[in-house]
Amino acid sequence: MQAIETFPTTDNVANLQLDASGNLRHLLTLEGLEKDLLVGLLDDAQKFVTHPGDATARSQSLAGRTVANLFFEASTRTRASFDLAGKRLGADVLNLDVNTSSRKKGESILDMIYTLQAMQVDVMVVRDASAGVPAYIARHVNDYVSILNAGEAEVSHPTQGLLDLLTIRQHKGSFEDLTVAIVGDIAHSRVARSTGQGLHTLGVGELRLISPPVLAPDAGEMPYARLFDNLEQGLRDADVVIALRIQRERIGNLDGIPGIDEYFANYGISTERMQLAKPGAIVMHPGPMNRGIEIESVLADSPASVITQQVANGVAVRMAVLERVCRSMGRH
Amino acid sequence: MQAIETFPTTDNVANLQLDASGNLRHLLTLEGLEKDLLVGLLDDAQKFVTHPGDATARSQSLAGRTVANLFFEASTRTRASFDLAGKRLGADVLNLDVNTSSRKKGESILDMIYTLQAMQVDVMVVRDASAGVPAYIARHVNDYVSILNAGEAEVSHPTQGLLDLLTIRQHKGSFEDLTVAIVGDIAHSRVARSTGQGLHTLGVGELRLISPPVLAPDAGEMPYARLFDNLEQGLRDADVVIALRIQRERIGNLDGIPGIDEYFANYGISTERMQLAKPGAIVMHPGPMNRGIEIESVLADSPASVITQQVANGVAVRMAVLERVCRSMGRH
Amino acid sequence: MQAIETFPTTDNVANLQLDASGNLRHLLTLEGLEKDLLVGLLDDAQKFVTHPGDATARSQSLAGRTVANLFFEASTRTRASFDLAGKRLGADVLNLDVNTSSRKKGESILDMIYTLQAMQVDVMVVRDASAGVPAYIARHVNDYVSILNAGEAEVSHPTQGLLDLLTIRQHKGSFEDLTVAIVGDIAHSRVARSTGQGLHTLGVGELRLISPPVLAPDAGEMPYARLFDNLEQGLRDADVVIALRIQRERIGNLDGIPGIDEYFANYGISTERMQLAKPGAIVMHPGPMNRGIEIESVLADSPASVITQQVANGVAVRMAVLERVCRSMGRH
Repeated sequence: MQAIETFPTTDNVANLQLDASGNLRHLLTLEGLEKDLLVGLLDDAQKFVTHPGDATARSQSLAGRTVANLFFEASTRTRASFDLAGKRLGADVLNLDVNTSSRKKGESILDMIYTLQAMQVDVMVVRDASAGVPAYIARHVNDYVSILNAGEAEVSHPTQGLLDLLTIRQHKGSFEDLTVAIVGDIAHSRVARSTGQGLHTLGVGELRLISPPVLAPDAGEMPYARLFDNLEQGLRDADVVIALRIQRERIGNLDGIPGIDEYFANYGISTERMQLAKPGAIVMHPGPMNRGIEIESVLADSPASVITQQVANGVAVRMAVLERVCRSMGRH
Repeated sequence: MQAIETFPTTDNVANLQLDASGNLRHLLTLEGLEKDLLVGLLDDAQKFVTHPGDATARSQSLAGRTVANLFFEASTRTRASFDLAGKRLGADVLNLDVNTSSRKKGESILDMIYTLQAMQVDVMVVRDASAGVPAYIARHVNDYVSILNAGEAEVSHPTQGLLDLLTIRQHKGSFEDLTVAIVGDIAHSRVARSTGQGLHTLGVGELRLISPPVLAPDAGEMPYARLFDNLEQGLRDADVVIALRIQRERIGNLDGIPGIDEYFANYGISTERMQLAKPGAIVMHPGPMNRGIEIESVLADSPASVITQQVANGVAVRMAVLERVCRSMGRH
Repeated sequence: MQAIETFPTTDNVANLQLDASGNLRHLLTLEGLEKDLLVGLLDDAQKFVTHPGDATARSQSLAGRTVANLFFEASTRTRASFDLAGKRLGADVLNLDVNTSSRKKGESILDMIYTLQAMQVDVMVVRDASAGVPAYIARHVNDYVSILNAGEAEVSHPTQGLLDLLTIRQHKGSFEDLTVAIVGDIAHSRVARSTGQGLHTLGVGELRLISPPVLAPDAGEMPYARLFDNLEQGLRDADVVIALRIQRERIGNLDGIPGIDEYFANYGISTERMQLAKPGAIVMHPGPMNRGIEIESVLADSPASVITQQVANGVAVRMAVLERVCRSMGRH
């Protein structure tokens, strides 16, 4: 008799994100969002970017609004980024770190959502280890509540995708002539998916996904991407190289990659290997880094690295998304 | 030589709650509070209730005040509700989730209270698994500090009681002709006690407490209530039915109720059983629900259910109580 | 290849704290700070002290600023004190309770700091169980970020030192003629170090450190102090007595002090023993107290005790320090 929670992941999630006027109401995935909408979000975000040491960008555009960070999966950085984004727009921010196990004790996730909705939470920022949760929630909330995906299983992490796009645009201008290489555990990476989808929509010249064969994406998943299992070949003439965080637990189980040293030897991004990329190529990483595993420590701190700039752009992108969805849904 | 903490529960707690002018200074229990005071709090709370989708009620009446949520017992919903209530009145809110075990490590609860008092915390919202703690604290704080009980063992949960009263009033108007049935683990329920006490003070027509015999209240505890162990009889012609959350751990130990299915069969509130109640009867639950155990899932989502409205009223009631005690104690 | 984190503790940390104009930029230790600077901070803090029951001191001097409480070591009181200090100055406050173990999982502490810096955090309040961490961080942040030490291993706890100084000054006026006795586990106490250093700089008449021989400071560590292992001798004619918190775990391992009762018998501060001190002598404790171990419970609650006043001064001191460093570093 207990309601069983299923989180279907096959529907058209993209349409669910827009209201009748085509405005962004939820941010669940970058897949299927129009180029104009992505560019508009990047433009908005750019306005919140200030130089280090300058006064922090802020406004009161979310005064009177409540943002709840509902993290069913632990996170320090993404939670802090959304927390600051909300506060710098004048919102009341409610941080809820919810142990997923409490969901199994009889309270369905929808009951928790309905509770927050009844408390007049305007925006729910949801991070969850199960695929489909953000869209499942978005399908059930009232039309004055907005859902933002802050990390969904291995499926999607759209604000990370947006901050990657913004960082690339700041350094490289347009996307048409760029070659972007994403390196690491593509199969399990929500970052690779969201950033890859966004790059495709913005018309990136070439998207490369580089990984050990066992960590490659499913055949046909991103048909617009070129797959590589040889790092050197994949890096050649790239404009942008994105190293993904690898779970250390996973390394020991990889065919032919018995340990950390072997992983770095085969797939670690180093200053030396960056010589294969285009002059002026930038290195990115979603953080937190495993220095010496997926990225050489010296490289991470070199001028080619734009990793901390990604973090700064993260706050700006989240401010832009928060403003956008609040404008769209509009309480009376 | 170590001071031993005792939390006496037998004193007249009701008097402790009022200042010399009869204004509410602490909220520890609904028991013994005058009808006028309860009605006044409900009237205040009603002003903070807005329609879903409307702008959230807020003010700056607590600007410059500090509210500390001191939760010795874990809670997501009640803590969030007090957190939002404080922020929407402009207060600074300090959230302290304190592991009770640290209390055993040598710091008495009073030392923690004196510490917060010295930091000029105006209101301490206390939740504790031990009976007597909120009153014990209230007896020791200075006269410019207010204590609000956010859940006390099995004894009292006064803001839950108030939000139940407000919800009933919104739907049924006056209490005199109403029959209200509370169903479940009455013996261990602070909700049943607070809501029952409040209903009695407001002159409810008939209060029914329905439970398996082993979960009935002590004889004479609520002499104004009628006790039932047969659900059908208890529901007959009720205007309001409140299902209580049952601890799953407890079910297995009940005489004659070996499992969840049996509990639902005997004491679960269902659409079918609600046919016994009056037409237009409402169903309530303090949350979080065990769907399919104490309440049928379909019923919880039906028009008869006012459960999410209870949640909304919870924020309003807490705002009203915060305003009231701050006005009463008054820093200079 | 993994970067190894070392936290050198031997450099001149005092110089690191000041900018080119001699203004306070970080607060890492009281050791080596000039008398004028300490007195200036105490003067600033005094302005934030209000009488109990009066309106809480607050301003908007940190509006637009972000303060992150980065606690790698658990704390309820110090974290709450910094949290309130930041909020009462109008800052956005980000609370991060970081499990130290996550630092071992591959993210260096600097990467976390660079992340917060990129998020435009202005002040990072750091508490850590490893010596050298605050200074290590201060050496690496940009010149528009300020580091405040909120407790560093057994080395330093400068805001505790300042609040002790302020409390003594409020009661005793000048320091020149005072005898201050610190009693307990001097060897492992960051409080004893910071308070002792501050007292020395302010020209205290006599500083006494009283402890069991095995808990005495290293020879020559505080050459300006007189060491005692006999409590009665150390208390004689003292103006101020500071009892330190002792770790209960440690007591059982002390030569000649097999248990709590023996510790209290030999080193516990009691009303009776305070008769040895000067008339009007005050008793202090950094909290949380082990009543009946290092301090008699009755004494802690007596008029001689200024322990809760220390707590109140803690918020004031932290507000003063926050204002000072924000004025000094100055975003554009």
